[in-house]
Amino acid sequence: MQRIYFDNNATTPLDPEVIKVMQLCLEEDFGNPSSAHYFGEKARRRVETGRRQVAELLHCSPDRVVFTSGGSEANCQAILSAVLAQPDCRHLISSRVEHPSVSQPLDFLRHRGYEVELLPVDGEGRLSAAALAAAIRPDTALVSLLIANNETGVLWDVAELGAICRERGVLLHGDAVQLAGKEEIRVEEWPVDYLSLGAHKLHGPKGCGALYLRRQSPVTPLVMGAGQEGGRRAGTENVAGIAGFGRACELAGAHLAGGGRAAVAQLRGRLEEGLLAACPGARINGAGAPRLVNTVNVSFEHCSSAQMIQDLDDRGFAISAHAACHGSDPEPSSVLGAMGVPETFRHGTLRLSLSRFTSAAEVDALLAVLPEVVANSRRGFV
Amino acid sequence: MQRIYFDNNATTPLDPEVIKVMQLCLEEDFGNPSSAHYFGEKARRRVETGRRQVAELLHCSPDRVVFTSGGSEANCQAILSAVLAQPDCRHLISSRVEHPSVSQPLDFLRHRGYEVELLPVDGEGRLSAAALAAAIRPDTALVSLLIANNETGVLWDVAELGAICRERGVLLHGDAVQLAGKEEIRVEEWPVDYLSLGAHKLHGPKGCGALYLRRQSPVTPLVMGAGQEGGRRAGTENVAGIAGFGRACELAGAHLAGGGRAAVAQLRGRLEEGLLAACPGARINGAGAPRLVNTVNVSFEHCSSAQMIQDLDDRGFAISAHAACHGSDPEPSSVLGAMGVPETFRHGTLRLSLSRFTSAAEVDALLAVLPEVVANSRRGFV
Repeated sequence: MQRIYFDNNATTPLDPEVIKVMQLCLEEDFGNPSSAHYFGEKARRRVETGRRQVAELLHCSPDRVVFTSGGSEANCQAILSAVLAQPDCRHLISSRVEHPSVSQPLDFLRHRGYEVELLPVDGEGRLSAAALAAAIRPDTALVSLLIANNETGVLWDVAELGAICRERGVLLHGDAVQLAGKEEIRVEEWPVDYLSLGAHKLHGPKGCGALYLRRQSPVTPLVMGAGQEGGRRAGTENVAGIAGFGRACELAGAHLAGGGRAAVAQLRGRLEEGLLAACPGARINGAGAPRLVNTVNVSFEHCSSAQMIQDLDDRGFAISAHAACHGSDPEPSSVLGAMGVPETFRHGTLRLSLSRFTSAAEVDALLAVLPEVVANSRRGFV
Repeated sequence: MQRIYFDNNATTPLDPEVIKVMQLCLEEDFGNPSSAHYFGEKARRRVETGRRQVAELLHCSPDRVVFTSGGSEANCQAILSAVLAQPDCRHLISSRVEHPSVSQPLDFLRHRGYEVELLPVDGEGRLSAAALAAAIRPDTALVSLLIANNETGVLWDVAELGAICRERGVLLHGDAVQLAGKEEIRVEEWPVDYLSLGAHKLHGPKGCGALYLRRQSPVTPLVMGAGQEGGRRAGTENVAGIAGFGRACELAGAHLAGGGRAAVAQLRGRLEEGLLAACPGARINGAGAPRLVNTVNVSFEHCSSAQMIQDLDDRGFAISAHAACHGSDPEPSSVLGAMGVPETFRHGTLRLSLSRFTSAAEVDALLAVLPEVVANSRRGFV
């Protein structure tokens, strides 16, 4: 059976060029970057090339990039770093639509006496800048915000929100795991103190990510030990992962520079228009807000996500209901809940996420089956 | 130039079979294990196969294995888990010869009001069971011990030391990063509550490790977020890394079962005898204690580690002074300091570490150059 992948916000297929450099690391440059010999030096160069490539995608100095095991670790480390550096600041601000790797460490801190304020979003998933400004207190240790929502693709204006934090002297962490490779990032120009990335969302490998740190940002390693990453993250470097991540960033940069964003946006438009025409009453969540060009979050009233996903899988289409991290979770998305999407729609949600490898033929193939899939699911409900 | 690798305690070349399975994951089974479709299921199976293979090397149930980004993360998580579960126990016991991924988090806790007791070792790197017993207090939260020393290879008797902890009702964490694949591990029969492993020390990939947890062991994720690893470690699974780690464990198990340990021990004997004969006055550190069969930690009086390593590197031999994590550290080993190795010897230390891929010809090639390397370095000193 031909398999068509529409779940790029869960994870992406690796670019063949990424696999190529990883293979060289696995086969030849297997040394420990801390070793003072030939093999160590070769591995060290791989890591530093990767760091330069990641920094180039972010438009920052390579020194500002700390490699982690992924976006989740980067998110946890940013929060820990901000909190530990300001022991008297016991107030944290975030939102109701965060990824669990932000909401869970915040919850952990809440149980340890921190006050955590989760800002609401409106019906389109937008965050109010005024609400953020009103929430900041003198004892706010950190504002942590999901710049590009993993479920809806809704984008927040980091320049506007960050300016408020900057003005009030509060650290800002941006979760850019879904943003990187899809929108241009100029982190040194942004009023942001921490930025998290994950390699596997931009055609790189799982098990590798990065935390960008502004020069003044306080930092504490989450993984403590030897002096790797300038004492900012311990553990023998994942050389192949880092090299693959770097190459993936380079390729993502080329994709953006070459107008790839518009090409994906066009395909997404074709998909949305097609499905709205074929499935009347479908609701595109977050459509009124700026969104990642690759993401369609669509709800069909009186349908079952699980049933549609199964049906689509049987037909060769890989699609998820919401965050992949909740694959086996029967609960509908809390992100859509926060947006006030009615319960009757929430249960029938699909997240369709494209990539630069998605073709018009694949979009058309999906459009050809979707009405039947929705109808089948709706019948099951009635 | 032919390159010969004698730095297997720093990191190991990947077994070609490990690379093969990783490549399949990177090319085909790229899905997110949490996704409820074909690609997710294939990735999930890779992770569960890896878990079974790691568990088989440890002789435990797969449920007891939590994948991490490496040995350092596993060490940090074990310590954090034990401490968080026992808020009234503010006393920690470890030793003076630990890996930084144990000593650093302990230091972090010391700065936060914990009392950390580091047990001494004797001249052979041995730990006194009586000293451990005497150190345990009613408020001891954890004993954390390096079962196989990364620098000297000295082995500690986990059965004896663990029995003391068990009797006194104190949790024991064993750092087995250097042990796995070199000695048989029967973790369910050992009186140990946590055990740390790293894939890249046994011909697996960097960026992957595991924490074994006894069923009753308290656990808190260090990387918090979604529900991966049964809620015990968040973040999208490093599928290729886990699959490679699993295969590496399977191959290590076969190596041990096939008498590979004795073969490595024989080569190590050849190396030690040869160098003692060729370099009179050389001192094998820890030789009086049980040791990993692959490790030779040798000190030459009035020599310079850095100079010898450079000289050896120029001749094609990859060797380190002590822990790779200190590659650029001009200080001599604190492990040897704790063992009372005289300063005049400590500066002239080499750690030669073999693997199942080391050949007798490679040992002989090293023996052929070592006397001249030592003599060159000694001349520089006089």
